[in-house]
Amino acid sequence: MFSTTRAPSSSEETYGFIGLGQMGYHMANNLYKNSGKNLVVYDINPKAVSRFIEYNKQQSSNDSLRIEVASSPREVAEKSSFIMTMLPESPHIKEAYLGEKGILSGISPGKICVDSSTIEPTVSLEVTKEVAKASAIGVDGPVSGGVMGAEAGTLTFMVGAPEKSIVERVEPALLSMGKNVVHCGDLGTGLIAKICNNLLLAVTMVGACEALHLGTKLGMDPKLLSSIMNISSGRSWTIDTANPIPGYLPNSPSSKGYEGGFAIKLILKDVGLAMSAAKDTKSSMMASALTEQIYRHVSNYEQYSNKDFSVLYKWLKENK
Amino acid sequence: MFSTTRAPSSSEETYGFIGLGQMGYHMANNLYKNSGKNLVVYDINPKAVSRFIEYNKQQSSNDSLRIEVASSPREVAEKSSFIMTMLPESPHIKEAYLGEKGILSGISPGKICVDSSTIEPTVSLEVTKEVAKASAIGVDGPVSGGVMGAEAGTLTFMVGAPEKSIVERVEPALLSMGKNVVHCGDLGTGLIAKICNNLLLAVTMVGACEALHLGTKLGMDPKLLSSIMNISSGRSWTIDTANPIPGYLPNSPSSKGYEGGFAIKLILKDVGLAMSAAKDTKSSMMASALTEQIYRHVSNYEQYSNKDFSVLYKWLKENK
Amino acid sequence: MFSTTRAPSSSEETYGFIGLGQMGYHMANNLYKNSGKNLVVYDINPKAVSRFIEYNKQQSSNDSLRIEVASSPREVAEKSSFIMTMLPESPHIKEAYLGEKGILSGISPGKICVDSSTIEPTVSLEVTKEVAKASAIGVDGPVSGGVMGAEAGTLTFMVGAPEKSIVERVEPALLSMGKNVVHCGDLGTGLIAKICNNLLLAVTMVGACEALHLGTKLGMDPKLLSSIMNISSGRSWTIDTANPIPGYLPNSPSSKGYEGGFAIKLILKDVGLAMSAAKDTKSSMMASALTEQIYRHVSNYEQYSNKDFSVLYKWLKENK
Amino acid sequence: MFSTTRAPSSSEETYGFIGLGQMGYHMANNLYKNSGKNLVVYDINPKAVSRFIEYNKQQSSNDSLRIEVASSPREVAEKSSFIMTMLPESPHIKEAYLGEKGILSGISPGKICVDSSTIEPTVSLEVTKEVAKASAIGVDGPVSGGVMGAEAGTLTFMVGAPEKSIVERVEPALLSMGKNVVHCGDLGTGLIAKICNNLLLAVTMVGACEALHLGTKLGMDPKLLSSIMNISSGRSWTIDTANPIPGYLPNSPSSKGYEGGFAIKLILKDVGLAMSAAKDTKSSMMASALTEQIYRHVSNYEQYSNKDFSVLYKWLKENK
Repeated sequence: MFSTTRAPSSSEETYGFIGLGQMGYHMANNLYKNSGKNLVVYDINPKAVSRFIEYNKQQSSNDSLRIEVASSPREVAEKSSFIMTMLPESPHIKEAYLGEKGILSGISPGKICVDSSTIEPTVSLEVTKEVAKASAIGVDGPVSGGVMGAEAGTLTFMVGAPEKSIVERVEPALLSMGKNVVHCGDLGTGLIAKICNNLLLAVTMVGACEALHLGTKLGMDPKLLSSIMNISSGRSWTIDTANPIPGYLPNSPSSKGYEGGFAIKLILKDVGLAMSAAKDTKSSMMASALTEQIYRHVSNYEQYSNKDFSVLYKWLKENK
Repeated sequence: MFSTTRAPSSSEETYGFIGLGQMGYHMANNLYKNSGKNLVVYDINPKAVSRFIEYNKQQSSNDSLRIEVASSPREVAEKSSFIMTMLPESPHIKEAYLGEKGILSGISPGKICVDSSTIEPTVSLEVTKEVAKASAIGVDGPVSGGVMGAEAGTLTFMVGAPEKSIVERVEPALLSMGKNVVHCGDLGTGLIAKICNNLLLAVTMVGACEALHLGTKLGMDPKLLSSIMNISSGRSWTIDTANPIPGYLPNSPSSKGYEGGFAIKLILKDVGLAMSAAKDTKSSMMASALTEQIYRHVSNYEQYSNKDFSVLYKWLKENK
Repeated sequence: MFSTTRAPSSSEETYGFIGLGQMGYHMANNLYKNSGKNLVVYDINPKAVSRFIEYNKQQSSNDSLRIEVASSPREVAEKSSFIMTMLPESPHIKEAYLGEKGILSGISPGKICVDSSTIEPTVSLEVTKEVAKASAIGVDGPVSGGVMGAEAGTLTFMVGAPEKSIVERVEPALLSMGKNVVHCGDLGTGLIAKICNNLLLAVTMVGACEALHLGTKLGMDPKLLSSIMNISSGRSWTIDTANPIPGYLPNSPSSKGYEGGFAIKLILKDVGLAMSAAKDTKSSMMASALTEQIYRHVSNYEQYSNKDFSVLYKWLKENK
Repeated sequence: MFSTTRAPSSSEETYGFIGLGQMGYHMANNLYKNSGKNLVVYDINPKAVSRFIEYNKQQSSNDSLRIEVASSPREVAEKSSFIMTMLPESPHIKEAYLGEKGILSGISPGKICVDSSTIEPTVSLEVTKEVAKASAIGVDGPVSGGVMGAEAGTLTFMVGAPEKSIVERVEPALLSMGKNVVHCGDLGTGLIAKICNNLLLAVTMVGACEALHLGTKLGMDPKLLSSIMNISSGRSWTIDTANPIPGYLPNSPSSKGYEGGFAIKLILKDVGLAMSAAKDTKSSMMASALTEQIYRHVSNYEQYSNKDFSVLYKWLKENK
């Protein structure tokens, strides 16, 4: 079904990448292009693999392709020294690591795995503990920056690792896909940082949409109001980068019919992970809980479900 | 009870200031010092006036004091061409402008009033309409920057005025008390901008405290988490300037036992004004409404009521 | 424009009624019919008066009509010993009592006023104090039972009065319009009881709609679920009388396209009064505040705004 | 450690009971006493078993004890035709049914299991499907009525079963522990009914506490207010049975220092199950979500955590 022109010579020089979806596709492209290493890739969906191979064949017409396609996560683990995973949800990661043909069944001591998926911290810890039992190293390294950052190679990696030396080992590979690597603390803290940041982002966006909606209803130009917030205590990434008012920022999703950006369904997923962690730790978080329901409500409407999360503003505006 | 050394020669050269409270005291000081104009001041509380006079006597030991104390807002209006008001709530402004010895009873055509109080936009409009009937000019010009900004002369004035030329007329006086003057649109929009900005600030702080609380409960260092948020999509004034984690920013209220800063009672007042405007305009604002109740709840506890609004974090932390 | 066949002989035998709107029309009808007294009526809207007169002329074809139409609240006060008021909002009551041709300008010592309007308790207290200054008696006596209860004469009156003897004096008149008279305590407590009851009702309905919505989404028949709630700890008036599931109760508004019943706009008004009182008393009420915003949101949609408040269920159901 | 005097003769005449905790202890007692059947019991905690055996030995001093103690759920399944389970949470049920020595490993065709635990409906379905694969019958049958109802034998069983005939088969056994058996629909609906009812109960209690708190702050006697609500549209089980005002109902938990009743931790668990099901079905439930956080917040305070859930009122009252 697909092929590679040349098998990489040894696992020492080879990186593995599992999960060639919306984010993973771009990340693997950058990893391949910028690291100069051989790559072994796997995706449960053959079309995702074909697309990836085709693209890189075209890019490297003169050179031989240093990419091999594996038939399982196990094969990726066997053939590479550094393994990236980028999958949608906790069960996929459990399967990729702990399944019958999973990474654990092919890994050997000293190898290192970075999981960039945004999943439940407890599942991540469960998985990385199993990796450690095999004398290999597993860390969480979720990203911020979205699909655009993945494509541009400007992601920030938030890494949870027990020692700084581990972060230093994976840094070169990660920097071939992003521009920042932050050591967040012990295992799991990368995910915690990611989830908490996105939770705050979600609440701030609700606040921004409500405040801008109120200003508009009171007769003020929401663009001017945004400008004032931008130089006042209300300023935030939400106002200066993801502003929900169409036309205020030329490149914001709101200016493009709320297309692109951070899909409301995806931020809802992250808020859900945060609220699940809040439940586990008995943390009462009133505004966050309401925020989750608001996003859930809006994303249930077909016309909003695939839009950027700033479409909340449109939902409010239509409630007059 | 108090006195001035010299009466200003004519209203042309004289500014008026009504309301020498926490904010007004510093603003009037700066107006006097930096504008070089004569000043006529009034406060319903004689002690506030004495304090102001004494301070300025000391400052100007060699010069004659160019400050006169008026016995009523009317007298201020009679003796000055430009009149600032800075009072706590709507009823005080109504009394100062429309009361028996109010500004309206002493004003003459062409004079100009800037009200920097944070009050209901509808009350402001009611008052400025009356000023207009007297062929004078009244505009709303609330400030952001707090007591520290008032003292340092770094306030931002958000001015609602029907014409740009009016803003240009008052700008020199305002810039003697602050560093920015923003024309927000027609009458009332200064207040709208102020209230909407502070509403957003209030919601963002709740989100920040909840997200940082969750991170802490999950085992992460909240200072490190703040650092990550600061370079991520969760960044905001709340994180980089008013951060609720003690010790993260040396000068934040949170690092000083939540003293100073923006008292929770005061942001509650502003959120209350926003929610009142939301009711008037039938704007449904779920997260904002909950935010108001959270601040009200926390400010009802004696140990929190006079603290900076970031004390929300402490309230959450104690709920374990 | 209208006329009466015979003027009542003396104020002793005459009752007054101000406000012949949706509720007042039926109440005045019952007061006239069941008390046997003469009636003096007033409404700012002449059509409301005509409709009332025409109806009663038809009813009393053989008898002479004992109803007189007054030209002002003052005239009602002058000509009757007992005066009912039933008006939409606080400003109407202020005008009816304290306006130039208001009740106060016509009242004389010993006369008694019952205000059945649902207004702010503070405004009610302001008005009844003025009545007391005229050596007359003013009490608050809002009702529960809605338009259907008003027509059927089955209202419950919640009376706030300083002494039980006052309640006993007005009881016969009130019982000609309703079936229960409850003495709630001192002045204002009738309104407090009304507002608090309706607030609880509003929150309970939100809870019922959400719980029934969840059950339905989980695959359960909401009618069966309602039946189980009815014999369990979830039972309430909302479930057994105003059930939001179409077809569960044949006569509920939900079974008639959410027509009739308690309009969402009106319960929103009452919740607004409660939240306003909560603000005045610094009471933090999180669920109630959110409830207000939910009703406001739903009532902003044209298709829901005039429906029974159980239409919340429909709003939830359409969010799938 | 424990013993039985006589092994029951055949599985036909024997009932099994797994889980002798707070609820199960009383239920098993009633099942034994009122059904006249032999009993095989199991609990992971030997002390719970001893306590049960000792109690029944004392009760039946003259008779031989018809209770056998099993060493595993498997043994219970082997020795009885009808098996009750009453365990705290989903993982316990999974272990009891699907574990190595679980019910499934000992069950034979035609036997019937009723699980009265309050767990996730999805877990229940997973388990009852496995039971069906063994040609046995598993149904969900959670209860309402609490520990007092369990002791008094007045529980209501909400049974989810694919056919009415199954409910009829288990009814005699269930009625020896309760007074009502309701067929809620197919598998899982018993749990859905239980969870939805308790969610509504939870929201109603928050509404009741807030409304009574507001009335009190406005100066009204909360007992009188409760009486009025009881004859008005605010009436509910929460007001007439579990009223949060101390002294209004002599036997309510609120009148006994909020002791007894429905522990806030337990209703929080049920609300958590409801919100989890809401997430699974993408149901947006704003007031319910906030309610969960309010109970979580209050139950985090040591002084409230073991109290009846009406202690919310006390929490509000102390916030002044």
